[in-house]
Amino acid sequence: MNNNNFSIAIHGGAGTILRGSMTPELQQQYENGLTQALDAGYTLLAAGGSSLDAVEAAVASLEDFPLFNAGKGAVFNNKGGHEMDAAIMYGKTLAAGGVCGVSHTRNPVKLAKAVMEHSPHVLLCGGGAEEFARQQQLQFEDDAYFYNEQRYRQWREALAADVVQLDHTAKKYGTVGAVALDKEGNLSAATSTGGLTNKKFGRVGDSPIVGAGTYANNATCAISCTGVGELFIRCVVAYDISCLIEYKGCTLREACDIVVYGKLVKIGGEGGLIAIDKNGLIEMPFNSEGMYRACRDSRGRDEVKIYP
Amino acid sequence: MNNNNFSIAIHGGAGTILRGSMTPELQQQYENGLTQALDAGYTLLAAGGSSLDAVEAAVASLEDFPLFNAGKGAVFNNKGGHEMDAAIMYGKTLAAGGVCGVSHTRNPVKLAKAVMEHSPHVLLCGGGAEEFARQQQLQFEDDAYFYNEQRYRQWREALAADVVQLDHTAKKYGTVGAVALDKEGNLSAATSTGGLTNKKFGRVGDSPIVGAGTYANNATCAISCTGVGELFIRCVVAYDISCLIEYKGCTLREACDIVVYGKLVKIGGEGGLIAIDKNGLIEMPFNSEGMYRACRDSRGRDEVKIYP
Repeated sequence: MNNNNFSIAIHGGAGTILRGSMTPELQQQYENGLTQALDAGYTLLAAGGSSLDAVEAAVASLEDFPLFNAGKGAVFNNKGGHEMDAAIMYGKTLAAGGVCGVSHTRNPVKLAKAVMEHSPHVLLCGGGAEEFARQQQLQFEDDAYFYNEQRYRQWREALAADVVQLDHTAKKYGTVGAVALDKEGNLSAATSTGGLTNKKFGRVGDSPIVGAGTYANNATCAISCTGVGELFIRCVVAYDISCLIEYKGCTLREACDIVVYGKLVKIGGEGGLIAIDKNGLIEMPFNSEGMYRACRDSRGRDEVKIYP
Repeated sequence: MNNNNFSIAIHGGAGTILRGSMTPELQQQYENGLTQALDAGYTLLAAGGSSLDAVEAAVASLEDFPLFNAGKGAVFNNKGGHEMDAAIMYGKTLAAGGVCGVSHTRNPVKLAKAVMEHSPHVLLCGGGAEEFARQQQLQFEDDAYFYNEQRYRQWREALAADVVQLDHTAKKYGTVGAVALDKEGNLSAATSTGGLTNKKFGRVGDSPIVGAGTYANNATCAISCTGVGELFIRCVVAYDISCLIEYKGCTLREACDIVVYGKLVKIGGEGGLIAIDKNGLIEMPFNSEGMYRACRDSRGRDEVKIYP
């Protein structure tokens, strides 16, 4: 059925810089970051590696790249710290792991994978998740590692404006993610984020939530989302696409159209997602101005894009 | 369409006491707790109140009752404290609120409702969620309020055995929840839990996760789950039932059968759920030895049960 096709798609968030503010140099930097991550995942797949390892490698690469809002590039929360969320899911077994509100972990996606593989749980939060990360001997970084002048300025601006409202930060939601199909026909998905600039009260978005921001099932598809997390949670976006395929007989494209351009738009849910179905077909729909995205498959498709 | 029918169903967890260990006195106490909560919700519905207020009132009553694992009766975590999770969802608007890993809040379901109504977010975790609760002036309680000799003994036993494994506590998962349809045809769901006895690492189960343990949508149904949370998350149980109705044309009973007796059993997911569809029909399926449950509707159905 799978004929050894393999595919990978990644995203660096749908909250892109407006086209008018983008410079050729900056665009090149973003494209380099996406290409590095794509290479990391694709190389593993081409060598016969598992989609689970491929999405972990791609997302870890995006987490290490300072321009995306995850890992090293995570935005500042209201207290001037970083609280990150991540999840990973393996479509062969429906095994999953996620963490929310973790600080100082260099690669939250690796922590999510450790939760999946080395704990009886699916979701760990806050200090408890960090305790688990230390027990698993994952790499930690101090505040200086996560410091970034641009992010700091974004936070100070948000902090000042916050007296009035949070809405103005809505376009700064950002996330990274990857989905992949390996030669064995196994699908995986992973998502990681620093959340919302100036976020308060331990806010958690859709990224670490199985079914909302992240989902993989060999019977249907693998999905990683980016956008206004609250609305993606309420729409159970990732699993919705899977159900439209499984129960309604939609193609991946039809399911993406219904959810991203229909349901989400209706409720004000700006954003997008990357998706791969069990045959390796890739979709990368978004209803925002742009979405940092890239994909490559064994049939020759190879793209790195920001705008439509 | 709705003809002013209204219905409510509640549960106090699927991890029941084995029939052989139940005494008539204890059974009476459980039934009293269920009846009180049912009355609290039903009275509101009969007076024309909203299903949202009804599920909040019913779950708050269950949280205040010491024998159920939520609120006052919440089990001890590994550090001898209490970390509670809760969620609420309103089917008319798909608005939702949830909290995970909160301590000292008397009624986590009220905090979840405050997140839904008074924050731009859907899910808050840990200390941040408590900060929000204080800002909202919700009722707090000290450790003594949550102390319970039986729960303490359960924890000490689990703590001792934990040296070897966590599995033996699996039957002690407990949760409370309510689903309701009001006279206006609006569905709501709410779930609350103290989680797993002796839980570590900030573990979060399905209860606070929209789509997993809690879901409501006027187009389909309202669901509150109880059971092995990790598997309910991986199966996105609550939204799965909604999708089976919406996309596959299943009745509520058919959807419950497929998920509770089919998919969940296959993956080892012990537990159950309560469900009401848009016509007010009630289902309360479980694949465990028992489930504390009760329901009442305007057509005369009135039940309080523990075993099949």
